[in-house]
Amino acid sequence: KSSFNQKNHPHRRYNPLLDEWILVSPQRANRPWQGQTEKTSEEQLPAHDPNCYLCSGNVRVNGEKNPDYKGVFVFDNDFGSLMKDDVEFSGETSDFFLLKPERGINRVICFSENHSLTLPDMEVNDIKTVVDVWQKQYEELGNLDYINNVQFFENKGQVMGCSNPHPHGQIWAQSSIPSMVLKTQENLKKYFEKNGTSLLEDYVKKELEARERIILENEDFAALVPFWAVWPYETMVVSKRKIENLLHFSENEKLSLALILKDLTTKYDHLFNVSFPYSAGIHQSPTDGESHPEWHFHMHFYPPLLRSAEVKKFMVGYEMLAEAQRDITPEQSAEILKNLP
Amino acid sequence: KSSFNQKNHPHRRYNPLLDEWILVSPQRANRPWQGQTEKTSEEQLPAHDPNCYLCSGNVRVNGEKNPDYKGVFVFDNDFGSLMKDDVEFSGETSDFFLLKPERGINRVICFSENHSLTLPDMEVNDIKTVVDVWQKQYEELGNLDYINNVQFFENKGQVMGCSNPHPHGQIWAQSSIPSMVLKTQENLKKYFEKNGTSLLEDYVKKELEARERIILENEDFAALVPFWAVWPYETMVVSKRKIENLLHFSENEKLSLALILKDLTTKYDHLFNVSFPYSAGIHQSPTDGESHPEWHFHMHFYPPLLRSAEVKKFMVGYEMLAEAQRDITPEQSAEILKNLP
Ligand SMILES: O=P(O)(O)O[C@H]1O[C@H](CO)[C@@H](O)[C@H](O)[C@H]1O
Ligand SMILES: O=P(O)(O)O[C@H]1O[C@H](CO)[C@@H](O)[C@H](O)[C@H]1O
Repeated sequence: KSSFNQKNHPHRRYNPLLDEWILVSPQRANRPWQGQTEKTSEEQLPAHDPNCYLCSGNVRVNGEKNPDYKGVFVFDNDFGSLMKDDVEFSGETSDFFLLKPERGINRVICFSENHSLTLPDMEVNDIKTVVDVWQKQYEELGNLDYINNVQFFENKGQVMGCSNPHPHGQIWAQSSIPSMVLKTQENLKKYFEKNGTSLLEDYVKKELEARERIILENEDFAALVPFWAVWPYETMVVSKRKIENLLHFSENEKLSLALILKDLTTKYDHLFNVSFPYSAGIHQSPTDGESHPEWHFHMHFYPPLLRSAEVKKFMVGYEMLAEAQRDITPEQSAEILKNLP
Repeated sequence: KSSFNQKNHPHRRYNPLLDEWILVSPQRANRPWQGQTEKTSEEQLPAHDPNCYLCSGNVRVNGEKNPDYKGVFVFDNDFGSLMKDDVEFSGETSDFFLLKPERGINRVICFSENHSLTLPDMEVNDIKTVVDVWQKQYEELGNLDYINNVQFFENKGQVMGCSNPHPHGQIWAQSSIPSMVLKTQENLKKYFEKNGTSLLEDYVKKELEARERIILENEDFAALVPFWAVWPYETMVVSKRKIENLLHFSENEKLSLALILKDLTTKYDHLFNVSFPYSAGIHQSPTDGESHPEWHFHMHFYPPLLRSAEVKKFMVGYEMLAEAQRDITPEQSAEILKNLP
């Protein structure tokens, strides 16, 4: 009987944020790939594209004209998944046919007027302006009585369903707390009630001691590959102190966040020498008017690529029906990311 | 204030199998799509491909030669995610770094020696043979003392990460019960303990009364779009009586399953006139030696396509960070599928 080695033997790891296990198969990383490959485009984009509905001064599908903005520009999504309307709901839904109307607001945040940029190309101060806007939007939307959660995210790259390369993110603000946010909250809360400390504060301390999964660190934030990461190059950006949400950020913390976002996305672009696709988003306390001492601000980065710019990880079959699964270990991914410029 | 209408207003629906809500945005179905499109290939495949490692008589990467099989052929996956080896594990893992070795067996099931076929092209009796083999494999693997769950699934189509068009599925059999199977089991159990009946038996009865989400029905099975379906054309095949697992199938039930699988996948192929991609898999009782009166055999079909053979639904951003989301309603999808040949 050989003794267990996490670099070579299949194992499961526990994710305390979601109270879930994932399957890690390090021995499988080198299997041959004959499946689908992704298109990569290296065409140079213009700073202003007359056909882009996000560029300054252009007219959108619904006939509205974007202002001649410089920097960040926020507007209500023309094809939102939510509606502001308050509707009459009788509520008689039976056992297996349970549904509830959902109210909300979808917004688009253009990060810059420059069509050709992405986060890593932007000046730190300009990324800081994006963080300022996140803060303001969280406050403004969160203050509406029917908005109990404000979800910020960015889909980047065609492979992530992003249809427009203009640098932008989204806000989906709504009455309910979405499933995964609620699940995270339950686990943060359980830990906080048991230990009187933040799960993520304690976790980041341990990671900073261990160092093997830390990619970047500054005064206020750490970027790391979580021990329980699912996507090959998944990372998490966590504040070192427990910050419940964007409202509690100091000016300096906003700058630190901008800095670490620039550095992390720059590393990503160097990994396979392409503008690196991902979905990223913020988890923070909901705006439901309750007190949330358990919450701890963090950002998740979920990039789909596995071996190269062309080969992504397919989360299919087993992953859809049974359990998340990864090949390369989080420690190997962290090592690779850490050593990139 | 207008009154709520599930065909036009955003709402959330409850999935009792996973105890989770999903977001439905019917008003969003017609937004323009400028994003990534999928390649479709309509090339006619040969019945035998000398370069296919799944075809009869061909040599695989590891040097083994496939027998000259006819019908179904099962072998151990050459690049499995699991290993049979029993390893020594000291077990000292701390708080945030919790892991456990995982043992298991990965197998590939070729559905036919004919490289050019897919399930809907096969004779019902030949699909029945696949069901027979599932039954035998469930028994054989489930009887191993270190195998507590046997997961069957099929990834079909390039877009689902399938690298070989030869008709085949997979088995991942392992010591642990995977996350989603366990979660389903917990909810089936809660219902069974409360009501003394199977959640899915009661649910299917209600669906057969309502009829609006039923696509196909025969003596023993129903195929429907679940009220809480996430993927645009997601379906579930459920046995009408509570069958815990494949071992309890009668000969006639195996034939009924083969029949409904043929008819469902035939409808799928007619939807966008392409060989329809999906991940499908079986949920049934684990082989952990416990008694499982709560379990009820069912199959999930998760197809990625949304509007056409080229445009899939991207489960990204909001879906990865917050909650599953769909545009077209389950009732609309069911109506479309029902009316296909
Ligand atoms: O084993 P395959 O078919 O090569 O691999 C495919 O299915 C597996 C199980 O769903 C996934 O883990 C892989 O990401 C996918 O590419
Ligand atoms: O609104 P977008 O960017 O057009 O749409 C994209 O992101 C959304 C939120 O993650 C998803 O629901 C869509 O499937 C995806 O195509």
